[in-house]
Amino acid sequence: MRKQFRDLADPEDVHALIAELEINTGTETVPLAQARGRVLAERIDAGIDVPGFDRSNVDGYAVRAEDTFGATEADPVELEQVGRVDAGEQPAVTVEPGTVVEIATGAVVPPGADAVVMVERTAREDETVTVRTAVAPGDGIMVAGSDVAAGERTLGPGTELTAREIGLLSALGVDSVPVRSPPTVGVLSTGDELVAPGNALDSDAGQIYDVNSQTIAASIEEAGGSPEVYPIVGDDFPEMKRVLTAAAEECDLVLSSGSTSAGAADHIYQLIDEHGDLLRHGVAVKPGKPMLVGRFENTPYIGLPGFPVSALTIFRHFVAPKIRDAAGKPPRERERITGEMAVTERYKEGRTRLMPVGLVEDGDGELLVYPVDKGSGATTSLVDADGTVELAPETEQLDAGQTVEVTLFSADVRPPELLGIGEDDPLLSRLLDRLDSPRYLSLGSREGLRRLRNGISDVAVVAGPTDREVETVELGGWSREWGLLVPADNPDGVAGVADLVDSELRFVNRGRQSGLRRSFDDAVERLADERGTDRASLTEDISGYTLTAQAYESPPRRVLAGKADVALGLRASAEPLGLAFVSLGTQSVRVLAAPDRAEKPGVEALEALLPPADLADGLAGIEAGEH
Amino acid sequence: MRKQFRDLADPEDVHALIAELEINTGTETVPLAQARGRVLAERIDAGIDVPGFDRSNVDGYAVRAEDTFGATEADPVELEQVGRVDAGEQPAVTVEPGTVVEIATGAVVPPGADAVVMVERTAREDETVTVRTAVAPGDGIMVAGSDVAAGERTLGPGTELTAREIGLLSALGVDSVPVRSPPTVGVLSTGDELVAPGNALDSDAGQIYDVNSQTIAASIEEAGGSPEVYPIVGDDFPEMKRVLTAAAEECDLVLSSGSTSAGAADHIYQLIDEHGDLLRHGVAVKPGKPMLVGRFENTPYIGLPGFPVSALTIFRHFVAPKIRDAAGKPPRERERITGEMAVTERYKEGRTRLMPVGLVEDGDGELLVYPVDKGSGATTSLVDADGTVELAPETEQLDAGQTVEVTLFSADVRPPELLGIGEDDPLLSRLLDRLDSPRYLSLGSREGLRRLRNGISDVAVVAGPTDREVETVELGGWSREWGLLVPADNPDGVAGVADLVDSELRFVNRGRQSGLRRSFDDAVERLADERGTDRASLTEDISGYTLTAQAYESPPRRVLAGKADVALGLRASAEPLGLAFVSLGTQSVRVLAAPDRAEKPGVEALEALLPPADLADGLAGIEAGEH
Repeated sequence: MRKQFRDLADPEDVHALIAELEINTGTETVPLAQARGRVLAERIDAGIDVPGFDRSNVDGYAVRAEDTFGATEADPVELEQVGRVDAGEQPAVTVEPGTVVEIATGAVVPPGADAVVMVERTAREDETVTVRTAVAPGDGIMVAGSDVAAGERTLGPGTELTAREIGLLSALGVDSVPVRSPPTVGVLSTGDELVAPGNALDSDAGQIYDVNSQTIAASIEEAGGSPEVYPIVGDDFPEMKRVLTAAAEECDLVLSSGSTSAGAADHIYQLIDEHGDLLRHGVAVKPGKPMLVGRFENTPYIGLPGFPVSALTIFRHFVAPKIRDAAGKPPRERERITGEMAVTERYKEGRTRLMPVGLVEDGDGELLVYPVDKGSGATTSLVDADGTVELAPETEQLDAGQTVEVTLFSADVRPPELLGIGEDDPLLSRLLDRLDSPRYLSLGSREGLRRLRNGISDVAVVAGPTDREVETVELGGWSREWGLLVPADNPDGVAGVADLVDSELRFVNRGRQSGLRRSFDDAVERLADERGTDRASLTEDISGYTLTAQAYESPPRRVLAGKADVALGLRASAEPLGLAFVSLGTQSVRVLAAPDRAEKPGVEALEALLPPADLADGLAGIEAGEH
Repeated sequence: MRKQFRDLADPEDVHALIAELEINTGTETVPLAQARGRVLAERIDAGIDVPGFDRSNVDGYAVRAEDTFGATEADPVELEQVGRVDAGEQPAVTVEPGTVVEIATGAVVPPGADAVVMVERTAREDETVTVRTAVAPGDGIMVAGSDVAAGERTLGPGTELTAREIGLLSALGVDSVPVRSPPTVGVLSTGDELVAPGNALDSDAGQIYDVNSQTIAASIEEAGGSPEVYPIVGDDFPEMKRVLTAAAEECDLVLSSGSTSAGAADHIYQLIDEHGDLLRHGVAVKPGKPMLVGRFENTPYIGLPGFPVSALTIFRHFVAPKIRDAAGKPPRERERITGEMAVTERYKEGRTRLMPVGLVEDGDGELLVYPVDKGSGATTSLVDADGTVELAPETEQLDAGQTVEVTLFSADVRPPELLGIGEDDPLLSRLLDRLDSPRYLSLGSREGLRRLRNGISDVAVVAGPTDREVETVELGGWSREWGLLVPADNPDGVAGVADLVDSELRFVNRGRQSGLRRSFDDAVERLADERGTDRASLTEDISGYTLTAQAYESPPRRVLAGKADVALGLRASAEPLGLAFVSLGTQSVRVLAAPDRAEKPGVEALEALLPPADLADGLAGIEAGEH
C-alpha cells in the first residue's frame, strides 16, 4: 500500500521552499526581430545621440531666430530663400542673416540657423518668404542628443521587451540584444493507463489519453519557460529512472504528474529519495494534496497530482510564479479581479482550497463568481472555470453576495458573452457557433431552470414539459422529434415503449435532468394508465432503465457499439450514426432568459438567432440557413 | 508642396471604415503542441466518451453497494477480497455478492461492482476486508461519458487555445487542430533618411535609424498577426511601386509609415490613388493627423505617421483591433484601467487627443496618471509612457484628482516599483540596475524637485546646491568630483574656468536643470567676484556657454568627437572616454523621497542600496561591491 500523507505541509511553507530552489539560467544574444517577450540580461546604455544632429521637427523654413523678432500676422518680415534641405540630406548652404532655407520635417538644420518656422505661418512668392510670426532660438528644432544622449542609461537588466522597448533599441541602432535564456522545464507524465493523443485507445483496459503533458507544456510556455516533453512512463522502475535521469540532465527544472497507479507513484518517490533530496511530500491544499518537492541529482523537481485540473491548479499556484521568476518576468498583476459570489458555498475540510470558479456578468454588468465543481477527475472543469478563489483552511462558508478575489487562469480571461445552462441539442450546438464567446453547460433542462432561478445563468434551454414555475422571458425555440434509436433496419421490430417492457432488449436511458427522460417517463406513464398499473412496475421491467448516459448522442452510440439494443434519443441522431428511428413524439425546446439578463448583449445576440414563434417553420428556416 | 489636410476625418468614421475593410484569412491544421495562442477554425465535438469506461475516482475497494448497506464504524461489514485492478488494466474478476476487488484511482470498475469504498473507510486482514461505511450505487465512480460524452459540443469556432483548451483536446485524443491562419501584415518604412539598425549611420547627412519597422512588426505579433517586414524605401517612385506591389500581393494588409520626406509621402499618396482606392486622408486625432486609409490593388492599406510614438499610437488605436479581429481574437478587455490625474493638464486643439501617460502608485497604493510629452519626435516617450488617455475634442482641461481611463500599452503593464526624476549619474545607473522595475527620468536636479513637489515622482535625485525648499525625506547619497574634460594630455593646458573666459576654446555646457550646471555657474560667479565683475559678462566670453547637452557624458563625447575643446562633466567619465580631467570640486548627490512615498516598497528597496551618511566612504563601498 502506498504511503499516506499524515503530515501535510502548510502551503506557505511550500511556496517558500519552492522559492528557494535554485534555477540557474544563462543568457544568449538574439536578433531584435526575435526579441519580443524576452527579458534583457544587461543594462543597455545609449551608444549614440538620438537624433544625431539638430533636426527639424516641422516642415517650414530654417531661420536665424533674431531675423524674425517682431514679426506678426499684421507686420510680417520678408526673408530670402537660398536653398532647400530634405530629410536624409546634408545641408549644402548656410543660413546667413536675412536668408532662410526651406526644410522638411526630419531634415538637418543647416549651419547658421537656430530655429525653424512652420510652413503654416509663412507664405512664399518666388524666392521671397514672408514670415508671420517671431520664433525663439530652438523653436521647431530637436537638438542632437535631446531624445537620447550617448552614454545615457536607457533600459535596465530585467526589462521585458515589448514593441516599445524594441522601438527604443531600434532608435539606438541596436539589432541584437543580450537576453536571459528561458528555463528549460521537463514534463513527464506517469501512469500505465496513459496513451498519447493521436494514438488508439483501449477503453476496456482502462486506458485514457494523457492530458497533462500538453497542458503543462503550454502552461510552462505561458509562464515564460521552455517546455521539454518526455515520453509517458508507466509502472516500470528502470524506465522511469532512465527518463528522470535524462530530464534532470537536460532541464533546469523537472515536473512529473501522476501517477494514479500506485506502483509508478512509489517509483518516483523512491527515485527522488535515493538519487536526490525529498524536501516535502504532501501539501494541505485542495486539490493537490499528493505534491512532491525535491531535487533529483541536484535538479529541482516538483511532482504534480495526476488529475488534470488538480495538476494545472497546483502548477499555476506553486510552479508558474517560480518559472516566471527564473525567466526574469515580473508577477502577473492583472490576473486578479474581484467579484461577488452568485451563490452560497460551504466548505469545511480544514485545508486551503483553490476553488475553481466561473465568471458571469449580471444584468448591470457586475461580475458574479460561481463555483465549478465537477469532481476532481473531470477535464471539462478546465474550460468551464475561469480561475480560482483561494479559501483559507478556517473558512466554512462563502455567502452569496460576498466579495471574493479571483485569480484568473490568464490575464485575457473574460466572462463569457452568454452563460447558458440546460438541455443539449444538435441545433443549439450550431446556434452557439454563431456567438462570439458563449459558455454552455449541458446539464439538462431541470438543472438549467434551477441555476437560472439561483441567479447564475443568463438563459436556460428547456426541452419538453416542466413542473417548476420560474419567472422567465421566453426568447424563442424550436421543436424536435424524439423516440427510440435501434440498429439499422430495426432487427428486433421495436415499435414503442411496450416493446421495452415486454422484452429483454437492452435499453439506454437519459438522466433525470434531461427533458428527453421526462418525455420518456410520461410515455411510460401513459402505457401504465392503459394497462391499469403504475409507472414503477413498468420501468422495473425495462432492462437498463436505470442505465443513463450524458448527452443526446450517448445512448445511440451505445447501440452503435453493440452494447445496447435500444436507445432514447432524437431523430436528428439517426442518420449521422446510421441507426433506425422509432418516433415517440415531438417536444418543444424553449430558450428562456432570466428577466434581469434579457438585455445583456449576448442574450440579445442569441435571441436574434432564434426561429420565430412557429416552431416547425422556424426549425426548417434555420436548418436551411446552415448551408 | 505636399497636400494640406483641410478636411480631417472624424476618428469614429475612420474606425468604422477600417472595420469594413475585408481581411480574409484562411485556416490551417497545426499539431496540438504548437496550438497555444491559436484560434479554433471549427467547432470541436467530442469523438469519444471521457472517460471511456466506468472509472474509480479513489483508491479503495470496488463493491456491490447493497453489500455495504447498514455498515457503520460501530457495526462494519466484512467482505472477501477476490482480486485487484490497477489503472491501465483490464479487470480479470467479477464482483459477486459478498466479495470486493481492490481498486486503484483511475482503474476500470470491474463487472458486478457499482460503487467504490475509499480505502480510508476500510481495514484489511489477509483476504478479509472490513467496510466501515455504507455506499450508494455510483459512489466513488466516474461513469463512462460523464466528463465528456461522445458527440457533445466541446469547443466552439473562435475559441482561443490556452493551456486548458489544449487539456480538453488532449483528453479527447486530438493531436492536431484546425485553426485560423493569422493575417499576414506587411510593414514598410519609407524615408530617404532611414537606415536599418545594425548598419552605419551618417548623422551629418541627417540619417536616423528606422524605428517603425521593428516596432510595428512586434506590435502586429502582439495583436495576433504575422508581420512581414519589407526593406526601407526612399524617395524613389519605381522602387516604391515595386515594393508596394509585392507587399499587396503577399499580404492580407499593408502598413506603411512615414515618410517625413515630402517626396516619398507624395509617391505613396499617388500610388494609392492610381493603383487602388484612397478612402481617407487625414484624421482629426493627435498624434497621427497624416493617416491614410485605402486599398492598393484590392489589398487593404493603412498609412501610419512617421514619428515612432505617433505611428505606434495610431497603430494601437486604429489598426491593432482590426488585426485582432482578423485573427479571430477577442478585444483585450484588461488593457483598460482607471486612475487619478496627478497634475492638471490643459488642452485645446479641438481634435481627439491620444495623450501618452505614465502610471505611478502613491503612498496608499492608489494609481496616479501623469502626462508624458516629450515632443512627437521623441522615441524615449515610447518607454516612459504606460498607455494613453483619450481626450474628446471639446475637452479643455483635465483637473488634478480627476478620474481618467487609461488604455494600457499591454495588459501586463504595471506601474513601476519606483518613479525617480532628477540628475543623471553613473553610480545611480548601477544602483537602478539592482531594482526590479524602476523608472528613472534624467531631467536634472531642478526638474526632479519640481515634479516631486507636484506629487508625481517618488524620489528626486539632486546634485549640488539647491535653492528651493521642498519637504523631503533624505534617503542617502554620495559625492562626485566634477570639472572640465579635455582631450588626453590637456593640449590647451586648461586649468580652470578662467581659461574658458580668456580663450576662444570651444566649450560644451549642461542645461539649466542639471546640478552640474549649477555648480559650474557658482564657479563662474566666484571668478566674477575675484575680478570685480558680474557673472553675465564672463559667460558672454565663454564660447559655447549656451551650447548645452543632455546627459553627463554628452559634453565630453563632443570633445572626443573633436566638436569641442572643453566639456563640463564628471571625473568618472574621463577614464572610460580616454579624456583628461581638470577638477573644479566635489558635489553631493542626494536621494530625496516625497514624505508620503517613503514607505513604498520600491523606495525602501532603493534606500537599502544607498551608502551610509559618510559620502566618500559610502561611494567606495558601493563601487567595491560592484565587482
